[in-house]
Amino acid sequence: MTLKKVNPDLQKERATCTFNVEELTNILDTGVEYTTERRALEDLVFSVKELKDDIPEEFMSHKQKYENAIRKAVLLHKVLNSGNSIENFYERKDKSGFRRTIGSAIFKDGSPFMLHSAMFIPTLLGQADEEQKKVWYTRAKNMEIIGTYAQTELGHGTFIRGLETEATYDEQTEEFILHSPTLTSYKWWPGGLGQTSNYCIVMAQLKIKGKSYGMQPFIVQIRDEENHMPMPGVKVGEIGAKLGFNTVNNGYLGFDNVRIPRRNMLMKNSQVLKDGTFKSAPNSKLAYGTMVMVRVTIVNTTAGCLSRAVTIAMRYSAVRHQSQLKANEPEPQILDYVTQQHKLFIGIATSYAYTFSSYWLWDLYSKYIQEMGDGNYERLPELHALACVMKVISSSDCTALIEKCRLSCGGHGFMLSSNLPQIYGLSTATCTYEGENTVLLLQTARSLVKAWNDASKGGKLRPTMAYLADPSPAAEWDTSLDGIIKAFQKVSVGKLSSSVSSLTQYAASGMSPEEAWNKASVQLIAAAEAFGRAVVLSVFKSEVEKYVETASQGVRSVLFDLVELYFTHMVLDKMGDLLLYTKLTGKDVHLLQRKYEDLLEKIRPNAIGLVDAFDYRDEVLNSALGAYDGMAYERLMAEAAKSPLNAEPVNGTYHKYLKPLMKGKL
Amino acid sequence: MTLKKVNPDLQKERATCTFNVEELTNILDTGVEYTTERRALEDLVFSVKELKDDIPEEFMSHKQKYENAIRKAVLLHKVLNSGNSIENFYERKDKSGFRRTIGSAIFKDGSPFMLHSAMFIPTLLGQADEEQKKVWYTRAKNMEIIGTYAQTELGHGTFIRGLETEATYDEQTEEFILHSPTLTSYKWWPGGLGQTSNYCIVMAQLKIKGKSYGMQPFIVQIRDEENHMPMPGVKVGEIGAKLGFNTVNNGYLGFDNVRIPRRNMLMKNSQVLKDGTFKSAPNSKLAYGTMVMVRVTIVNTTAGCLSRAVTIAMRYSAVRHQSQLKANEPEPQILDYVTQQHKLFIGIATSYAYTFSSYWLWDLYSKYIQEMGDGNYERLPELHALACVMKVISSSDCTALIEKCRLSCGGHGFMLSSNLPQIYGLSTATCTYEGENTVLLLQTARSLVKAWNDASKGGKLRPTMAYLADPSPAAEWDTSLDGIIKAFQKVSVGKLSSSVSSLTQYAASGMSPEEAWNKASVQLIAAAEAFGRAVVLSVFKSEVEKYVETASQGVRSVLFDLVELYFTHMVLDKMGDLLLYTKLTGKDVHLLQRKYEDLLEKIRPNAIGLVDAFDYRDEVLNSALGAYDGMAYERLMAEAAKSPLNAEPVNGTYHKYLKPLMKGKL
Repeated sequence: MTLKKVNPDLQKERATCTFNVEELTNILDTGVEYTTERRALEDLVFSVKELKDDIPEEFMSHKQKYENAIRKAVLLHKVLNSGNSIENFYERKDKSGFRRTIGSAIFKDGSPFMLHSAMFIPTLLGQADEEQKKVWYTRAKNMEIIGTYAQTELGHGTFIRGLETEATYDEQTEEFILHSPTLTSYKWWPGGLGQTSNYCIVMAQLKIKGKSYGMQPFIVQIRDEENHMPMPGVKVGEIGAKLGFNTVNNGYLGFDNVRIPRRNMLMKNSQVLKDGTFKSAPNSKLAYGTMVMVRVTIVNTTAGCLSRAVTIAMRYSAVRHQSQLKANEPEPQILDYVTQQHKLFIGIATSYAYTFSSYWLWDLYSKYIQEMGDGNYERLPELHALACVMKVISSSDCTALIEKCRLSCGGHGFMLSSNLPQIYGLSTATCTYEGENTVLLLQTARSLVKAWNDASKGGKLRPTMAYLADPSPAAEWDTSLDGIIKAFQKVSVGKLSSSVSSLTQYAASGMSPEEAWNKASVQLIAAAEAFGRAVVLSVFKSEVEKYVETASQGVRSVLFDLVELYFTHMVLDKMGDLLLYTKLTGKDVHLLQRKYEDLLEKIRPNAIGLVDAFDYRDEVLNSALGAYDGMAYERLMAEAAKSPLNAEPVNGTYHKYLKPLMKGKL
Repeated sequence: MTLKKVNPDLQKERATCTFNVEELTNILDTGVEYTTERRALEDLVFSVKELKDDIPEEFMSHKQKYENAIRKAVLLHKVLNSGNSIENFYERKDKSGFRRTIGSAIFKDGSPFMLHSAMFIPTLLGQADEEQKKVWYTRAKNMEIIGTYAQTELGHGTFIRGLETEATYDEQTEEFILHSPTLTSYKWWPGGLGQTSNYCIVMAQLKIKGKSYGMQPFIVQIRDEENHMPMPGVKVGEIGAKLGFNTVNNGYLGFDNVRIPRRNMLMKNSQVLKDGTFKSAPNSKLAYGTMVMVRVTIVNTTAGCLSRAVTIAMRYSAVRHQSQLKANEPEPQILDYVTQQHKLFIGIATSYAYTFSSYWLWDLYSKYIQEMGDGNYERLPELHALACVMKVISSSDCTALIEKCRLSCGGHGFMLSSNLPQIYGLSTATCTYEGENTVLLLQTARSLVKAWNDASKGGKLRPTMAYLADPSPAAEWDTSLDGIIKAFQKVSVGKLSSSVSSLTQYAASGMSPEEAWNKASVQLIAAAEAFGRAVVLSVFKSEVEKYVETASQGVRSVLFDLVELYFTHMVLDKMGDLLLYTKLTGKDVHLLQRKYEDLLEKIRPNAIGLVDAFDYRDEVLNSALGAYDGMAYERLMAEAAKSPLNAEPVNGTYHKYLKPLMKGKL
């Protein structure tokens, strides 16, 4: 559908915007050159008609969805290669690559090759030795083989030590025997595992001569290279339909004593020699780095999901008219209702906050990686705690706000043609994968309690935790940005201190340290979250300051409006904590409420510009409600017309069931 | 799949439960006779093999889902009639009928006949005159015709006055001309409208001789009774895939000057005479009653969704083992983690709270209906405000807690075979339909502001709002149940007072009353919510007191544990408001936090009993994770085996796409 006309409501919004939208897009892309590069790639891919679906995926059966995704995945691979562009560019995970959303434009619900490029190849690069790389990385890069990465099992997820799959070394034949001793030991979840991959990196418990050597990575052929049949002893299939990622082809995998050559264990780090001698990795911390990187990317992924959802909801709110503010006046745009602004503007601010936070975290990660390369690991625990807590609060905040965006569109947000339900499905998954959020908060809490105890012994704390050692009482309430950051640091200190004293009290009452930890764990996860809040507030402010250094007054001003809104909303949202741990008073709360209402009014004229600046093409948004032209009703009807149920005037079940029923001839 | 074995973890939980589960089930059913009746109906329906799906619906295409649902809807109708049981029993909407969940067992995602029995027939009963009833009600009851109810349009929802469909009276031919003047005037959403119904009650703007007479109901034939083809001038189809209700066959409907006889306007209330004279309804408030009733049922519906979700999550948490609380000990049930109890026990307590609240609201509604029958309408505004706010907070609380249940199951909660995503879809829709939540909160706020102004003039307030007139300052903090109810009433007063003073200030600054209302609306919806909280706390306590009057000590004790948990959790959750508007102190908060942790421990042994008491059959839960036997892993694998993708060892796309790719022959 090509509609040249733009809804006059959106035209009006764009005409009254007070800042240069393109300039802000360039900032979000971390440089004008990246905007140009990104758009060129989008032009290349979006010009291929066969990559678009004539019938939207939501009308297909589970099997049809998969088959259509394979067709497109192979075609996309061909287009990218023929375009002679950057290798795996749509999975590029550096800061500027974060905004490449071509994958999500072509696959509303994920690509079956996702794990091949995002996990199989990176694991080969990180864990195979040079000789192994020559074989496997080369074949994988050329798509001679398609691989995936299998760690999670039916019975175990985040707790890696509990994984049951075994790899037992047989020094007679110089082979490992892969085996799944129980139903719960079946691998479960890897993308592309069901019907797509023929190789798999399998994490398994290494056993040599009856002794365990922990989890190690093994490359296992799971399907024949000539006919794709499962290899002997390999039980493989897909796990069924899910809330999201239905075209990713998640699978299960079990082994019945499958033998693989010794050199199929990836040996860059640990090694098993021919005679069964185990040589452990010189440094196990390197593997940590990859895990941290994945969590950094999640902060960006969820911010990206939210920015797409809020673009859709904002544009729809600009063109939807409803009810009356004043008698005898026309129905206003629903965006004029302050309750609607209350639902959505915090979504805009939050997507900017986590986008910039993800850039900051990426820079920090890159710096630490360099330090680690120089043999300096001392800041790894801090990086680990930061990546954990920022993954948690970004995924939970963005997911909740995406749902708020969907609900703000009323019934139409319930339609899959809005794409809001699908974006929610992709976003909420980030609360679970790569470390379940509660488990990660407890890990962060452990770092914080350790830092607290270190500080009480006079130890020096890492930069982002330094405030924990500041013994000064909360100052008078200060509504400046820095004042609010300090206040949230006091909340963080207060909650941590309170948790530690509960731990002490529970221990004093006779509990073991583990029982006390468990009993106080609700407080501990709250303390971890509070730490994350203090960090993100501070980072959002400092990153905006950095990025607007050379910006125009218009862009600078609107970005600081967003920062003010984010801070004010956060104070009102966490009012209880601030009343407990700082000198915030009821009077301050009332003033801040008024300030919040004024900020909504101030941002209103620029609100559409702020989402336009994300520069999402219609192909990426994939939404009847959110298209750039704002022709929401025309597009809803056009999408409904694609339903196969509407292809025939009378459905076959009428003759078979309804007519006999109505004619009393059942 | 029939598995006789019960997971030993669940056996252990059931053995240590301290109360009589069956007794609690009878209380939830509002009487042992209703438990018996409900189970008999379940036995009848669940014994019909053809009502079960061999291949789960989530693997079907959109069209297949519909066709399968029609097959089952017709069969279910036959089974019920042949069973000679109560008419429309699965839609029975009195208090004891609330727990009839057969519909949701047969249709995971709604029945295409839902609107026929839930809206078409009730509207005929409520709005057709006796002569019309003889024709239409009789035909509808006998399923000679299938109907639906069309009000919402593409461009207008909750704001009914904005609806655009026109019914113009032609006194020459004594007909109404139904017309859709714009795209946005198309009806959009009615269940069963797409391909199923042949009649439809259409709400349209009545016009006679150029004058408007507001919204009136018209019965319109939309499909031919002999061949089901759309009638001339009728444009009808289905609206496409949605987040839920995909088997309900929601449709759109447009008219191109479609003529219907004068007597097709339902005339129990307003009438149009042959010559075009309009006689208005003697009392327009009667129609209000139905709307209130639907909102009452929503409180029960969402509580039901939550109770199913929490049953699933609790049973899974009892059989899932993970990680270690203590070194060298076996992995504990995840239910032993206090963070998991924190996620789930409030879900149990909330489902009990809203279940009992819905019974209370139903009794209130029934009493009011009787009063209205006697010509006494004075309590209608109070009932309206209560139904609005309880619909809002029950739908939003239960939906959020269902999502928490899903997330508490980790990755497996993301599987559709858990049924948790589908329950979420059904529940979240209640936040939007029958009055969008924000709109309803604003309506409640309007009642409250009116009551506030009345009280300031010395007027008498209705029972549930009487506390608004109490000028006494907040007393010292009191942690008893009554103390907490009083505290929440003070919060409600404080927020309302604060909103009213903002309204005054904004008006004083020169805004019109409407502008001031809009600008203060974020505060106003918070005040409305606070009113609802105070009501539900009070009702939960008083209803439990009522229902346990003759109960055993065990049941009484565990129900009061739930009440205590609900109250304590609510205080901690709304701590900020209580710190502002009552004399709650930081010290109280710490004590309550400790009390909360103790309550989780106290409820732990009875937690499985509390969800078993809901007495949901496996057919109703439809969940691999939540079955009574707790064989979660076996069932997950069995459900995966049903995926059509697993029916063949190699998918056809391998030969067509993957092999050429991997062999370099693209």
